[in-house]
Amino acid sequence: MRLAAIPFLRPLLRAQLRAQLRPLLPIALACAALAGCANPGGGYVVSEVGSFHVGGRQVTLSGLPEREIVFTPGAAPLKVNPNGDFEAEQMYAQYVKLASPKAKYPLLLIHGGGLTGVTWETKPDGSPGWQQFFLKAGHSVYVNDAVERGRASWSRYPEVFKSEPFFRTKKEGWELFRIGLNGSYDSDPAKRRAIEGTQFPTGAFDQFIKQGVPRWSTNDAATQAAYDAYVQKVCPCVIIVHSQGGNFAIQAALNAPGKVKAIVAVETSGSPDPDKTDWSALKATPMLFVWGDNLARYPFWQGIAGRIDRVQQKLAAQGGVADRMELPQLGIKGNSHMLMMDRNSDQVAQLIQDWFAKQGLMH
Amino acid sequence: MRLAAIPFLRPLLRAQLRAQLRPLLPIALACAALAGCANPGGGYVVSEVGSFHVGGRQVTLSGLPEREIVFTPGAAPLKVNPNGDFEAEQMYAQYVKLASPKAKYPLLLIHGGGLTGVTWETKPDGSPGWQQFFLKAGHSVYVNDAVERGRASWSRYPEVFKSEPFFRTKKEGWELFRIGLNGSYDSDPAKRRAIEGTQFPTGAFDQFIKQGVPRWSTNDAATQAAYDAYVQKVCPCVIIVHSQGGNFAIQAALNAPGKVKAIVAVETSGSPDPDKTDWSALKATPMLFVWGDNLARYPFWQGIAGRIDRVQQKLAAQGGVADRMELPQLGIKGNSHMLMMDRNSDQVAQLIQDWFAKQGLMH
Repeated sequence: MRLAAIPFLRPLLRAQLRAQLRPLLPIALACAALAGCANPGGGYVVSEVGSFHVGGRQVTLSGLPEREIVFTPGAAPLKVNPNGDFEAEQMYAQYVKLASPKAKYPLLLIHGGGLTGVTWETKPDGSPGWQQFFLKAGHSVYVNDAVERGRASWSRYPEVFKSEPFFRTKKEGWELFRIGLNGSYDSDPAKRRAIEGTQFPTGAFDQFIKQGVPRWSTNDAATQAAYDAYVQKVCPCVIIVHSQGGNFAIQAALNAPGKVKAIVAVETSGSPDPDKTDWSALKATPMLFVWGDNLARYPFWQGIAGRIDRVQQKLAAQGGVADRMELPQLGIKGNSHMLMMDRNSDQVAQLIQDWFAKQGLMH
Repeated sequence: MRLAAIPFLRPLLRAQLRAQLRPLLPIALACAALAGCANPGGGYVVSEVGSFHVGGRQVTLSGLPEREIVFTPGAAPLKVNPNGDFEAEQMYAQYVKLASPKAKYPLLLIHGGGLTGVTWETKPDGSPGWQQFFLKAGHSVYVNDAVERGRASWSRYPEVFKSEPFFRTKKEGWELFRIGLNGSYDSDPAKRRAIEGTQFPTGAFDQFIKQGVPRWSTNDAATQAAYDAYVQKVCPCVIIVHSQGGNFAIQAALNAPGKVKAIVAVETSGSPDPDKTDWSALKATPMLFVWGDNLARYPFWQGIAGRIDRVQQKLAAQGGVADRMELPQLGIKGNSHMLMMDRNSDQVAQLIQDWFAKQGLMH
């Protein structure tokens, strides 16, 4: 028997229901206002933003002379003793944890050489980068700064770090990252000649260069040790890695069998030796190799791509998933080495997100 | 007439209500699961996590000799030319924007000397820090790394930065930050003698030291310029500033009248000259000075506090809000210089949050 079928009861029933529903209204309205319940408006519910340092060790310096430092112009110099205990060779990582991730595993975004985790944050042109894209897509996201860079900090040299650092010039960034062809850089931004059809927002190039950090050629072992500790701490996980980071991330996955559930190697320039490495630990780890445009116009990049292609072949030969996404072959033209900063970065990220779904990595 | 008062209708009414409420259940459950609607479970709805660099300029180096660098052990050295264009003296800032902040203005957390924005993130003992506390309390939060530090990057010296950097020893951190009295540090963590009743998690001290970064004594002008640009970019805002950052943050507020709506100076060690500064631009900016414990046991801190007290007196004398929170006087004992990392950091943050509310800074 439906009460609403009894005509004289209908208005009373409606009033009764309204009274019963009223307490639920604020919840529904709050959902709409906070844009978090069904993810309208692109917001997402975060349970925690946090960070940590991982790896590193105590080092002690002794026998170094005191230095006089003038802390305030005009004031008398103060003596500073540089000897003592320090921490060295740690790595920094920051996470944004979603309350209800749609991804089965957290996503680690690993940067390339001479750069930090800022690579993945807001793009130099001010629009959202891949960190924000993958948060919105339902991943808890980790972004790290490798040993020697950014918030990981660096150590006195040559006493702790064994060599001098070097600093990437704008010219190198412009040409190596395939924004312009070799010889097209100029100190005057108006005179720089970008590669035709580039997706890189060239007006934001100087802003991009502000993200650069000095690098050392002598910290690879410490960097790998910190990446290994990082994977042990936060995985099982999925990794997107860029450029020089490929060497560390792929080696870390080899060193922790089963911990890394997938790797997307974006314009990877580094890797363990394709021919001298036992790849069997990665047989069950799907990998996707993503390449931008214009590789063939740079001898340097042809060499790099050839090596990484051999890694891909080795992985495929042992029966693993070793997919390839060469963007120009998909009709997506003009991408630089810094895909995640290019104007069409969301389009490329969506292809990667679709691949994650296809690999069964989303709930 | 209440239908439920008619006995034979009660079971039918219950079934009818259940049917009517069922469509709303998924919303209520989603709210509960996502922990975002009424903020149960501490989650919060974020519209964007992002970052930017602000300030800085192009510098050009020339005439420096080429260097040979061995990039891979055993490989032939490669020549690297250190000359060219670089960006220098920029600052880095990261933000977490809430979809519906309860605070009227974004909150800028500004770190102290030899440290970065990591100061405000997860505490060295792994529990949530003030960034997370104030996000949960309803503030959109900005965290920066000042010029020369962390993700702001640093420049070649003495060509760009005009002096050598110096590195804080563990002993200095232990004693200067009032974790142990002078002379109580030891290289062996087990032999370090903390000040009795300290709130600092001494077992996490080495983890804290990993947050340290080198510093220069010659970058103050560039640092101030970047802070000024930062305030112009993101304010109106509210600032919490720690230690050495006080000098830059308070000067930035003086340089941008009306932009900074309140300043909480936590254990501030730096400030513009109390007696030579025109404080009138801060007359309408409420300020709160927060101090931990044991200041009187360190001559250094007695000197610092005396100077900052004069700043407070100047602000009060011109009729502004210049409040003081000396924690031991409130019965809160044992706080170190690193209040935001102490075990009772949430208790201290809540006092600041209450002060924000009292100043009318919350919706």
